[in-house]
Amino acid sequence: MAGAGNDRLKARVHVTLKPGVLDPQGEAVRHALAALGFEGVAGVRIGKVIEIDLAAGDHAAAEAEVARMCERLLANTVIEDYAVEIA
Amino acid sequence: MAGAGNDRLKARVHVTLKPGVLDPQGEAVRHALAALGFEGVAGVRIGKVIEIDLAAGDHAAAEAEVARMCERLLANTVIEDYAVEIA
Repeated sequence: MAGAGNDRLKARVHVTLKPGVLDPQGEAVRHALAALGFEGVAGVRIGKVIEIDLAAGDHAAAEAEVARMCERLLANTVIEDYAVEIA
Repeated sequence: MAGAGNDRLKARVHVTLKPGVLDPQGEAVRHALAALGFEGVAGVRIGKVIEIDLAAGDHAAAEAEVARMCERLLANTVIEDYAVEIA
């Protein structure tokens, strides 16, 4: 990948609820797992994974661009955290 | 972690649409990113990440248990793939 100028990169973004924010969907899944007989599940949290196929000059530029996408659109930063990985 | 018998483990499950399955939510995000001026985004796919806090004897047992949860409840294996990571 070194020196690649106009590659397509794959970015993977994890958007998860901040600690302390209630996750009713996760709670519903936890109850459903218990009802199905899965024991020992203490907690379930559900987030999103967003895979973006993008053209970018390099890793650092792609990471900054995707972080801007998160701030503008992909995450609600009041209640959600995001993490960007470039592959 | 070696020899731990009754630890709590964190499992992270990625549930993503299989290749070829239409992803209208991802398409909507792709259009929205373009409308916001982000260029070079060729594709967006959206999946779920499910974090499960569970009691399990060991890594292998936890992985098998979570795979069973995926088959029974967490993923629709007709249209979705899943991947389990134990941390």
